[in-house]
Amino acid sequence: MRAIGETGRHQPVRLVLHPDRVLPTQPGRRAIARQILAQTETLPIVSPHGHVDVALLAEDRPFPDPAELFIRPDHYLTRMLGSQGIGRERLGLPADPQVALPDPRATWRLFCQHWRLFRGTPTRHWLLEVWGGLFGLDEHPGEANADRLYDQMAARLAEPDFRPRALLERFGIEWLATTDAAWDSLDQHRRLARAGGPARVRPTFRPDALFALTAPDWRDRLARLEAAVGQDINGQATFVAALRRRRQDFIAAGARASDQAAVSADSTPLTAWEADRVFAAALAGHATSDQAAAFTAHMVFEMARMSCDDGLTMQFHPGAERDYLSQVWRLWGSDVGYDIPVAVDFVRGLRPLLEAFGHDPGFRMVVFTLDETTFSRELAPLAGVFPALKLGAPWWFLDSPAGLRRFRQAVTDTAGFYNTTGFVDDTRAFCSIPARHNLARRIDAGHLAGLVAEHSLELDEAVETAIDLAYNLPNQAYPPPPGGPADD
Amino acid sequence: MRAIGETGRHQPVRLVLHPDRVLPTQPGRRAIARQILAQTETLPIVSPHGHVDVALLAEDRPFPDPAELFIRPDHYLTRMLGSQGIGRERLGLPADPQVALPDPRATWRLFCQHWRLFRGTPTRHWLLEVWGGLFGLDEHPGEANADRLYDQMAARLAEPDFRPRALLERFGIEWLATTDAAWDSLDQHRRLARAGGPARVRPTFRPDALFALTAPDWRDRLARLEAAVGQDINGQATFVAALRRRRQDFIAAGARASDQAAVSADSTPLTAWEADRVFAAALAGHATSDQAAAFTAHMVFEMARMSCDDGLTMQFHPGAERDYLSQVWRLWGSDVGYDIPVAVDFVRGLRPLLEAFGHDPGFRMVVFTLDETTFSRELAPLAGVFPALKLGAPWWFLDSPAGLRRFRQAVTDTAGFYNTTGFVDDTRAFCSIPARHNLARRIDAGHLAGLVAEHSLELDEAVETAIDLAYNLPNQAYPPPPGGPADD
Amino acid sequence: MRAIGETGRHQPVRLVLHPDRVLPTQPGRRAIARQILAQTETLPIVSPHGHVDVALLAEDRPFPDPAELFIRPDHYLTRMLGSQGIGRERLGLPADPQVALPDPRATWRLFCQHWRLFRGTPTRHWLLEVWGGLFGLDEHPGEANADRLYDQMAARLAEPDFRPRALLERFGIEWLATTDAAWDSLDQHRRLARAGGPARVRPTFRPDALFALTAPDWRDRLARLEAAVGQDINGQATFVAALRRRRQDFIAAGARASDQAAVSADSTPLTAWEADRVFAAALAGHATSDQAAAFTAHMVFEMARMSCDDGLTMQFHPGAERDYLSQVWRLWGSDVGYDIPVAVDFVRGLRPLLEAFGHDPGFRMVVFTLDETTFSRELAPLAGVFPALKLGAPWWFLDSPAGLRRFRQAVTDTAGFYNTTGFVDDTRAFCSIPARHNLARRIDAGHLAGLVAEHSLELDEAVETAIDLAYNLPNQAYPPPPGGPADD
Repeated sequence: MRAIGETGRHQPVRLVLHPDRVLPTQPGRRAIARQILAQTETLPIVSPHGHVDVALLAEDRPFPDPAELFIRPDHYLTRMLGSQGIGRERLGLPADPQVALPDPRATWRLFCQHWRLFRGTPTRHWLLEVWGGLFGLDEHPGEANADRLYDQMAARLAEPDFRPRALLERFGIEWLATTDAAWDSLDQHRRLARAGGPARVRPTFRPDALFALTAPDWRDRLARLEAAVGQDINGQATFVAALRRRRQDFIAAGARASDQAAVSADSTPLTAWEADRVFAAALAGHATSDQAAAFTAHMVFEMARMSCDDGLTMQFHPGAERDYLSQVWRLWGSDVGYDIPVAVDFVRGLRPLLEAFGHDPGFRMVVFTLDETTFSRELAPLAGVFPALKLGAPWWFLDSPAGLRRFRQAVTDTAGFYNTTGFVDDTRAFCSIPARHNLARRIDAGHLAGLVAEHSLELDEAVETAIDLAYNLPNQAYPPPPGGPADD
Repeated sequence: MRAIGETGRHQPVRLVLHPDRVLPTQPGRRAIARQILAQTETLPIVSPHGHVDVALLAEDRPFPDPAELFIRPDHYLTRMLGSQGIGRERLGLPADPQVALPDPRATWRLFCQHWRLFRGTPTRHWLLEVWGGLFGLDEHPGEANADRLYDQMAARLAEPDFRPRALLERFGIEWLATTDAAWDSLDQHRRLARAGGPARVRPTFRPDALFALTAPDWRDRLARLEAAVGQDINGQATFVAALRRRRQDFIAAGARASDQAAVSADSTPLTAWEADRVFAAALAGHATSDQAAAFTAHMVFEMARMSCDDGLTMQFHPGAERDYLSQVWRLWGSDVGYDIPVAVDFVRGLRPLLEAFGHDPGFRMVVFTLDETTFSRELAPLAGVFPALKLGAPWWFLDSPAGLRRFRQAVTDTAGFYNTTGFVDDTRAFCSIPARHNLARRIDAGHLAGLVAEHSLELDEAVETAIDLAYNLPNQAYPPPPGGPADD
Repeated sequence: MRAIGETGRHQPVRLVLHPDRVLPTQPGRRAIARQILAQTETLPIVSPHGHVDVALLAEDRPFPDPAELFIRPDHYLTRMLGSQGIGRERLGLPADPQVALPDPRATWRLFCQHWRLFRGTPTRHWLLEVWGGLFGLDEHPGEANADRLYDQMAARLAEPDFRPRALLERFGIEWLATTDAAWDSLDQHRRLARAGGPARVRPTFRPDALFALTAPDWRDRLARLEAAVGQDINGQATFVAALRRRRQDFIAAGARASDQAAVSADSTPLTAWEADRVFAAALAGHATSDQAAAFTAHMVFEMARMSCDDGLTMQFHPGAERDYLSQVWRLWGSDVGYDIPVAVDFVRGLRPLLEAFGHDPGFRMVVFTLDETTFSRELAPLAGVFPALKLGAPWWFLDSPAGLRRFRQAVTDTAGFYNTTGFVDDTRAFCSIPARHNLARRIDAGHLAGLVAEHSLELDEAVETAIDLAYNLPNQAYPPPPGGPADD
């Protein structure tokens, strides 16, 4: 019962970014894919749905070390290590985000020892792109070279070229959206906007923490919103008014979109009387979980109404049980890899919203999902008929070569290419933004090459479509709202 | 933020129907696929599940113009244009089906301007087949050539060769089923049968409008059924008797099948007492929506029972929310692209029906779905064990190259090829019938070629299977019922 | 309406096991796949989840005839024949498993006549491997050669080399698990262990028949458990204690795992008081179906708790409606092809269990599913974060070339290769065990070759991964529990 064949496991592997990586393997298709990719690979990047911390860019401090940069914030990576028994504790990650890693080199070494776990995953792809393309590493990480690679990256991180704003430019990012709480002061965004530079950083209005009426700290969140608008919120009407005001603040700071999550896709509005009653229960501290769910659905509807009025694109991504394990959440907080997807019914869930706003010429909605079964059954049919609705790119667990391929296979028949947003990344890991766009451009080039090779599309059309997916469609899905800054 | 690369968009593209279109791109597989396709491409067409209007064929009038022929009746096409803000109004489509297009050329031009939206869709494939193969067009539609193409097609449509019955022959259609209301007089069918000709046109018994107890015009529908049978319907028993009589009328007129839709797949029968009570409530005008749903499930069961008795093949396609937007339905009616699929549970839904009739030697049922998740999980396991049940071809949104491929990949392991119906189109657009069969034959040739290329099937077997899928299996799934016309 | 092209149907087809069967068809990928397969094809077989009857091996009698060996016990095969109207009766299969086939040669002939039904199915693949590889047949079965092939196989079966234990060795099986009722005496296992030999046969603890409180013979089952432990079971506490004792007996006899099914994935525990009440109702003969479902969920939780304590790997495969047709079950019993998959919600179902035991270092759970939608949405995200949870191989209807390919495509992004168990067969048909492992090794070689060909993986890594999937991972997922026999 001894293991077979482990001898080769720790030999260092040369890191080569092959020019044809993830392109189709059939030579005829590959040749076409190369021609298409040649037209998109160097296009500017538009990143309207990211999770990079604005402070990172506003403060522009050097990244402290490779472990802090690559391991700690990347829940794809820590969840995979955790699944093999190397939990956050063993990795030496402090629970408090303000506390630095006690031994970043040890953290890095532990990760390097388990590099083989990432075979076949997008994490591997993204990291190799960054290490090979940006840091110039020449080997895959392993036990033998862990320290050498660490030193090489640490040296780079000390250079001015590797500070966040310099990278933002080097990455060719035309504009980038962050995600910001509805009560955020937006000071960092204003500071960044004043600083200028070729890349525009935009806030995104994310109010859903305020819709979770039964969250333990809901009153604190509400208090922050009250502080932000300088007004008491004593009921549903003042709550909605405060949200409307804050959306205007976000628009003035350059925002293009709002963003919200939910477990289900329900958008059934409450009557004003019901909404008042539920909100009053929450203020009194005794809202039930049924009331909280109904209020979330109501606010999905209300956010759509506000989008019709002010022109922010509404982003909606239901279908994850957040913080699946209460013990993990208590110890480590959110966004540590314990959000798990569930099935979603978009058709019945979005019906009230689409009945009310689906044909409103001012309304733009982008829907993301982790439930692939809805691609061909629900989302392509909906996006293929409602002018307000566009299909977001494959998101989170689906943002991978295989996921991107299945997405185009599943939705194009019914939604075409032009009812999708083109590629939109969802990145917390700043350095991986170009890697993700490059990967998507490769997969789309490969998909389009397949259509050309089977004589379903002309090469000229394929090139034009690839450019649209990489650049034009994301811009069109997130247009400047009326009343935004003049420079837009 | 200006768009990149739009310059090429309006150059005319040469229309070429490549002999290898949608065949596998790998040269070895493609060569095998060609050999298979050579044996099926010219086989006669059997079309047992269509939606061509019988009047079109019975009256045999020339098609008025290209826009009336290609745009107005094609909900695939109008929904895609609508999804990009070019709604039915802007297209100049009158709400009243009796009113002609006010400016068909303008409608056509608007469509041509947006041709790129259809990249990657089956609509594009079907239309190019018809334009290139039947009308001899030499370019894809575009702004520059819209008028020229319009004139070229209009000239053809004036020729006697392009009248419906002449096309029916040219298409090589052996027999074609239409879909007819349960109260239909069948006069047009009788007229067509007397006219003779190589292609047999058959009615299909479609009673489900009569099961929608809460539809606003349900009483009118019932009155039409009463008129058709010349008898009062005053309860559930007379209702069922009337349906049985009408099925005999349909069989006498050459019908092979019944057809019905539902939202869920439920087939739970009511007791006679319950059915009476529900039907009485409907007659009194106060049936509830729960009662209507229960009655629909009951009638799914009853239709199966009738099929056992009279030999009509029962077609069932649950899983679409019909007329999803009430405002659209009020303005434009049904079948304008606003039917949206939902998840279906066939296993629990069909259990009562299969328990009662699944082994009845006289029962034949064909099931269609828009919920692909049921292919491998539910429908292949059911069709792979119940002699009464066959799997219909990929339907509606799934009738596409990618959909057809996924279908064979998902069901063959468990249901084999011989528990499917082979290819069955679902066409409202008369001219596209041959295009759809040709497409399916290409995809099946490609799928079988893959099995041959990987040494899982011999070429002889693949050819035989391809012929069965194209011709023999549809005929076997829709056999002549006892008591049908002698010439069958 | 006569059938087209049937003439060729009954020509004998040469049986050749092509060395590249089911490898990728693209030559570049195929060449890489060959290199990978060369490293795995001859590895020993580990089979931790099978359904071979231990008596077969313990008694080691010759197989009676080809029909008894290949047709009668294979529900894949009999369900396919049944779906085309050749039911068990027509096949001449007695309902009583103790009664021999009255005319095995006639049964075999009928099967041979319908060989074409199996085109495209894994059954065909497995059978050809066995006939071509083990029995040396030179033609596919058909009407013309049915008798000749029968005689050839019957002659082989009379040879000592074809007795079960000889085959077990020839198959290169290192260890094999059977499935045994919780009350099993384990005498046959002890006898086999004493007999020695290179292959270890292990029991698997399967208690779920005891959790079906409303089964007609539940009291008989309970009585058997009482007999096995020599103690009265008068309530939930003594029931659980008896299960714990039996698990120790199984561990002493070499068991590595428990195994259980359910319709849903629910694992909600009852309080002790509730469990007592439900168990008492069952003892009194009036448990309701709701109580039975709640008790099943409770016992899923309890079995996980016991696994934490004693180290047996917990296997769980919910999501099939067993004995779908009551009339079939009454006539023919279970496991005759009438179990039909249903949708499963693993995320909410397993939450109580994972909250309690998901990070328990002693807990190991392997989950199998027939609902492919859960691969990317639920199971890969869960297995990709919980150290206790591993994803079982594609199971039952999904254990096919297409199913195995879709599995790797769907789960690797999020779970990687190392959170799966590698290949685990689920075989009732003894002779097909090597065929199934060989098939899986071919598909995994092809999948890994695709990653190498697209430059996403180095060849060395692919080979190492292929060996892990074929051999090391199954062993790691089913480790020896503490307290097992010394020779493990």
